[in-house]
Amino acid sequence: MTQEAVLKHTSGAAPWQGAKPLPSLAVLTVGTLLWFCPTPEGLDLKTWHLFAIFVTTIFAVIAKPLPMGSIALIALGFCVASGTLTLEAGLSSFNSPVVWLVLFAFFTARGFVKTGLGSRIAYLFVRAFGSSTLGLSYALAFSDLLLAPVVPSNTARGAGILFPIVNALCVEQGSTPQEGTTRLLGAYLMKVVFHANIITSAMFVTALAGNPLIVSLAGEVGVTMTWMGWMTAAIVPGLINLLVLPWALYMLYPPEIKHTPSAPHLAREALHKMGAMSRAENLMITTFLSLLVLWIFGESWGVSATATALFGLGFLLATGVLEWDDLLKEKTAWSTLIWFAVLLMMASQLTKMGMISWFSENMRAAVTSFDWGWSFLILGLVYFYSHYFFASATAHISSMFSAFLVVMMAAGVPGGLAAMTLAVLSSLCACLTHYGTGTAPVYFGAGYVSVSDWWRLGGTLGLIHIALWATVGGAWWKMIGLW
Amino acid sequence: MTQEAVLKHTSGAAPWQGAKPLPSLAVLTVGTLLWFCPTPEGLDLKTWHLFAIFVTTIFAVIAKPLPMGSIALIALGFCVASGTLTLEAGLSSFNSPVVWLVLFAFFTARGFVKTGLGSRIAYLFVRAFGSSTLGLSYALAFSDLLLAPVVPSNTARGAGILFPIVNALCVEQGSTPQEGTTRLLGAYLMKVVFHANIITSAMFVTALAGNPLIVSLAGEVGVTMTWMGWMTAAIVPGLINLLVLPWALYMLYPPEIKHTPSAPHLAREALHKMGAMSRAENLMITTFLSLLVLWIFGESWGVSATATALFGLGFLLATGVLEWDDLLKEKTAWSTLIWFAVLLMMASQLTKMGMISWFSENMRAAVTSFDWGWSFLILGLVYFYSHYFFASATAHISSMFSAFLVVMMAAGVPGGLAAMTLAVLSSLCACLTHYGTGTAPVYFGAGYVSVSDWWRLGGTLGLIHIALWATVGGAWWKMIGLW
Repeated sequence: MTQEAVLKHTSGAAPWQGAKPLPSLAVLTVGTLLWFCPTPEGLDLKTWHLFAIFVTTIFAVIAKPLPMGSIALIALGFCVASGTLTLEAGLSSFNSPVVWLVLFAFFTARGFVKTGLGSRIAYLFVRAFGSSTLGLSYALAFSDLLLAPVVPSNTARGAGILFPIVNALCVEQGSTPQEGTTRLLGAYLMKVVFHANIITSAMFVTALAGNPLIVSLAGEVGVTMTWMGWMTAAIVPGLINLLVLPWALYMLYPPEIKHTPSAPHLAREALHKMGAMSRAENLMITTFLSLLVLWIFGESWGVSATATALFGLGFLLATGVLEWDDLLKEKTAWSTLIWFAVLLMMASQLTKMGMISWFSENMRAAVTSFDWGWSFLILGLVYFYSHYFFASATAHISSMFSAFLVVMMAAGVPGGLAAMTLAVLSSLCACLTHYGTGTAPVYFGAGYVSVSDWWRLGGTLGLIHIALWATVGGAWWKMIGLW
Repeated sequence: MTQEAVLKHTSGAAPWQGAKPLPSLAVLTVGTLLWFCPTPEGLDLKTWHLFAIFVTTIFAVIAKPLPMGSIALIALGFCVASGTLTLEAGLSSFNSPVVWLVLFAFFTARGFVKTGLGSRIAYLFVRAFGSSTLGLSYALAFSDLLLAPVVPSNTARGAGILFPIVNALCVEQGSTPQEGTTRLLGAYLMKVVFHANIITSAMFVTALAGNPLIVSLAGEVGVTMTWMGWMTAAIVPGLINLLVLPWALYMLYPPEIKHTPSAPHLAREALHKMGAMSRAENLMITTFLSLLVLWIFGESWGVSATATALFGLGFLLATGVLEWDDLLKEKTAWSTLIWFAVLLMMASQLTKMGMISWFSENMRAAVTSFDWGWSFLILGLVYFYSHYFFASATAHISSMFSAFLVVMMAAGVPGGLAAMTLAVLSSLCACLTHYGTGTAPVYFGAGYVSVSDWWRLGGTLGLIHIALWATVGGAWWKMIGLW
């Protein structure tokens, strides 16, 4: 027997490495209580069971008895073992384009790091705005705004384009999860850029894949929305929200690096040392610009954001900018593939099984007796906070938007106001969780922000968003005659 | 700029790391010629293009301008970019249960290695049969035979149960791809067990997921096949094939370790040193036995092989026998997920687009003018060798079995003989490639056998199988009145 084999064997007698006992107990308790809870009228047992598993899984992701990937596989196993879902239904989201867009975006981001192009861009940013962290965060937020009207996938924009730059900035400033220096800069910057992306998504019809769907759903119930009308309504509260965000997070979740007067000087030196662009950097920037062009114009040519990401990755692999082994080493990407697909699957299946429409129906019965102001408020909040149960804006929109719009209008809310409010909330609600939209698993998966911080800040920013859009938005929408 | 960043940047100026120029040129030439080849009558252009991409991809896998994962992603990208397939069709096999069975089997196999249980089993084997490599190979081949009548997924049997044991045996004998010692033992043993599994698949209705499909397809055209009838026909040539196989490979692909008289003694000592089973080993053997029971009886309880593998993996993760990071470190598993899903997708899409039925139709026109003996021979060989284009027995069977059976019978071949011949060939043809059945990517993916060796030996063994079943089988089938 070799030494190694002896060691391997001995490690079998090591302390318990399975699920942590206390969090497991909590998760099992919650799960059991929900599972055996009487099924609400109008829902069948399997739908209720899937809902119980979904809530328990989310709870387990927070209580963390095991890493998220393990939780996802165990939850998937339980769905199938309990007969709640067939194996085919359980695996059904593994071919979802949004799952692969996320994976391909992770891999492409690796190219920015590997070639040094990310560092170069980071140094250029630092040279221009690096004297303060706040300056940096505004620069990034407004880069996203610049791209938003023409990049209709918020994931392509936030995860494909901006994430690698943010990531490179953090690494270059010495803030990484590996070194335990997340709060130095990365945690703050990741949250700013993630949330900026959510705000810009609400500002243009073409800033989110779900927005054109909203326009057509609203049209079906008689509310006409146009590109210009949407932009006109959203630009004022949106800009103010975008101005408030970096500063608000700067107060709520301060980065440790605040003033960096020496940074621009250092950046200038570093850029000088780097010299001219290498071949790999040139290939990387070519890929980046091609991706940008395809993400901007691709939808009108029939090329989806995922297909674009796949072409870019194929080019990087063929030219050797990325090697196959680089992809295999991206453990976070593979982890995300598993847990994101499982959560997306549960959310889709809940919608398919009628949980969401049942829920909308029940809300309708509850609010039509109120004054429209109350109905508007309650329905808006329910629509917003129900996103805790969604892993995609498109799923949320397609399952709830029409029902809520109709109920609001039945309660007396002016159609234009109701549609625009729900439209904006459809984007903003993605701020709540670390799985609520395609960019979330990328920014969360980078490892800078803990689940509890993510949810706490998401909740607080949700309140700030609602307050800003209700006051500034409400006043502006009155001025432009939306109500 | 940190030292690391400087190094990273400098590495950007390294020599070309992309696709190897000469193999790339060959692949591009083959691809271009096929792509622009006139489309055969009866096929539409897109089907022909997909066929061209499929053949080019297979050629690229052999010519190796890049690792297989990169080739698969680039091929997938080309399918979508050229408009041959939609993105949705391109991603369609990523939720195929057989793909996930392979992945889960890889992960479970890790548990045998990590806990030391694999080593223990290996030592027990070595203690009992280890005085010769040939003895070992017969022991493994007949273990598979023992399981075959009751484990209806050849992947569960070959990849889930036997692969970890074979793998542990090779590692313990110092034969690993990492150390460049594949030919010491592993290459030979992997091939023996892979091919034994293929032979046993042909011997019982319940030894391969596709076999019950064959029984029902044959029934539809008036040929009755029963469990007993199948076994009676297959047991004699099957047993002889299984007896010949380890010896034939021993001649064709000799292991360097042949006589190991000291091995049983060493194994006894090692087992003594290992002492009692650890908790992790006990959990692992519990999982193994539960998997075995569920794989044997699961199908009749409605629990598929993939679901069983998922439950087992979930249990191993919950109990900490495997940790999430162990799974992320299994790079081969993630690689296989990508390339196996892409090849399976292409094969499925070719069938869906009518390539296979077009092909069967053309064969029909060609052979009905011959004497039935010739038709029988030609159709059998075409059926067998067309498996070069298939990544799954089920796909092969569902797309070609009925057509070929009908054509054979139309040419005058007795129905029972035709059905049984095609049934047996449906299993045996999996010997040809490293993607022809669910076990193939596992045994090939282990890295012991090069693509060229795999195909060369597969081709030779294919001829041996055909010769044995034609002579011994033919005589036996005459005796039992099949023709």
